[in-house]
Amino acid sequence: MRVGVIGAGQLARMMVPAAIELGVELRVLAEAEGMSAAIAAERVGDYTDVTTVLEFARGVDVITFDHEHVPQHVLHALVDAGVPVRPGPDALRYAQDKLLMRERLSEFGLPVPDWARVTTVGELDDFIADHGGAAVVKTPRGGYDGKGVRVVRSAAEVAEWFAGLAEDGREGALLAEELVEFRRELAQLVARRPGGEVAAWPVVETVQVGGVCSEVIAPAPHSAGRLADVAADVAITIAERLGVVGVLAVELFETTDDRILVNELAMRPHNSGHWSMDGSTTGQFEQHLRAVLDLPLGGTGTHDEWAVMVNVLGGPEQGTLADRYAEALEGHPTVKIHNYGKDPRPGRKVGHVTAIGPDLDDVVYEARAAAAVFQD
Amino acid sequence: MRVGVIGAGQLARMMVPAAIELGVELRVLAEAEGMSAAIAAERVGDYTDVTTVLEFARGVDVITFDHEHVPQHVLHALVDAGVPVRPGPDALRYAQDKLLMRERLSEFGLPVPDWARVTTVGELDDFIADHGGAAVVKTPRGGYDGKGVRVVRSAAEVAEWFAGLAEDGREGALLAEELVEFRRELAQLVARRPGGEVAAWPVVETVQVGGVCSEVIAPAPHSAGRLADVAADVAITIAERLGVVGVLAVELFETTDDRILVNELAMRPHNSGHWSMDGSTTGQFEQHLRAVLDLPLGGTGTHDEWAVMVNVLGGPEQGTLADRYAEALEGHPTVKIHNYGKDPRPGRKVGHVTAIGPDLDDVVYEARAAAAVFQD
Repeated sequence: MRVGVIGAGQLARMMVPAAIELGVELRVLAEAEGMSAAIAAERVGDYTDVTTVLEFARGVDVITFDHEHVPQHVLHALVDAGVPVRPGPDALRYAQDKLLMRERLSEFGLPVPDWARVTTVGELDDFIADHGGAAVVKTPRGGYDGKGVRVVRSAAEVAEWFAGLAEDGREGALLAEELVEFRRELAQLVARRPGGEVAAWPVVETVQVGGVCSEVIAPAPHSAGRLADVAADVAITIAERLGVVGVLAVELFETTDDRILVNELAMRPHNSGHWSMDGSTTGQFEQHLRAVLDLPLGGTGTHDEWAVMVNVLGGPEQGTLADRYAEALEGHPTVKIHNYGKDPRPGRKVGHVTAIGPDLDDVVYEARAAAAVFQD
Repeated sequence: MRVGVIGAGQLARMMVPAAIELGVELRVLAEAEGMSAAIAAERVGDYTDVTTVLEFARGVDVITFDHEHVPQHVLHALVDAGVPVRPGPDALRYAQDKLLMRERLSEFGLPVPDWARVTTVGELDDFIADHGGAAVVKTPRGGYDGKGVRVVRSAAEVAEWFAGLAEDGREGALLAEELVEFRRELAQLVARRPGGEVAAWPVVETVQVGGVCSEVIAPAPHSAGRLADVAADVAITIAERLGVVGVLAVELFETTDDRILVNELAMRPHNSGHWSMDGSTTGQFEQHLRAVLDLPLGGTGTHDEWAVMVNVLGGPEQGTLADRYAEALEGHPTVKIHNYGKDPRPGRKVGHVTAIGPDLDDVVYEARAAAAVFQD
């Protein structure tokens, strides 16, 4: 069993341990030398180049991804060459283009924020006027971790985005969305096999800081019952109707008026699922490999009442994460530390820690305190 | 942090996932191409050759082991070159030579079977006569998985071992031990840092078939209280008095008259600790790395009431373990499968499975049934 992963960031890196235990050979196409998943890097090459990607795919049983940035024409070239691509291009385009995603989910009747396709400053100002004087404006493609997303009260604030639109080849549209009043953000992860088997982890609460995931609580507090059911239903419906294979992460808003709205989709292991590596019978990286290899999915039960994951963002100003291990491990012997092997840099995701246990306050404290050791 | 591992079997292989998560660079000195830990293999070379080993050790922070077969003169050459060797040669010789081990543990007053150093057929026959007409005879060096161990009722049964003795350089001695009447076999694993910090997992019951570990139940049933305390005390005493660094496995007999006797020692992660990868806060491979890197040790609590590990011995007669994944994973979604990436061969340890849960009967059933899928 050989899996080819396009992209060599921490998501590809964290597939390696799961692959080793399952006896799966993982080969990674890295963008550059020395990336997070370098231990499994088969070669360094440009994932937008058809020849490079086709050559990389030779000799693997399936191609999957560390990110969603592989262009559609490259994905289709793989499919045309008979390579199983999971998730496939027809699913991935909804993770690549937020306007397409909104259109499709609306067709399905799934709960989404009010939205509009806007091509001019005037259209956006109309949308803002109709939605309480504010809107969230998104570039349909290429955004991540809060990039390409702006909250505005006037279309003038994204004038340069409109100016740049003609270049993107999608007839120059932005996505405008209502500014949702939400109580909190949630994420629902599921995995799906090609034949349709799905498995869902418990819905989790995610805390974002500056558009970047900072903390995840699994399961989301007070989610048992209706909330858990609705979240799982929404994600499973999306996975099935879009034909996603592998892990699908559905970011959700829990609104102040108790609605659940779909925010974003990711078709790969996701930051909001890192807790599962230490807190669930089957971690998301193992499950993703099982799904894309069309193997039966693993149980998604939890080891304890609560799991809390805190990202290490930036890392220490001087030195490396390892320099702080003595302090972090001494003070937090039950916390699991995951080091992505990256050089510290402000705001960069360089690792995460997970604590599990029966008392939520204790678990939150442990995870936050351990993560804090790595930050100045 | 760079750890050099001498030996590239499944124990080195299973250190790799732990190393990746901790951000530790693992470099393996393999005996041959294509071994279990090939993904981390830095080079292929002879671990009995001083020059090869010294060269391998250049650039790593510490040397540790997949097995105990590195000769003392090679270990001392590393120490003389200033390389941290963990466990060190002075501890390792007690895992390399069973006669030395018996002498030393007896000096410590630790509970061991009756034993004698025998150099002639006559001495062994005397020992047999004094011990109810039977003895366990062991070659002091080089045995593992039941090799170099024989139960005899007459010295004539190991006549060829005596004949070969002159060659081994230890003045031609064998180890004779009483044939212990035991109720069951146990194993106690501990980890120790250079400075002395120790951590013990719960004592486990081990089931051997033909001298090879077949099954492990963690914790050992009915072990809470005195038995757990005695086992932990014995292992911690050995770790401290022999100055072991890293994981130490102490194989024990629980005799029919309720004594706990030390059988064998291993100074590395051990088959009896594989359950900890899925059943404990800190798996033995992570703990071993933490110990040899002189990092604070992790918690040794368990995720559930019971963990049962069953070895996959031999594997299928035709094909590979992966050919059976559809059946094994479908039928046993909560069992964790560990594939060592070896070609199946009768009796060979090619993988293991672990189940955890609150009911021992269920957990034993699940683990055995999943392992059975891989065997004809």
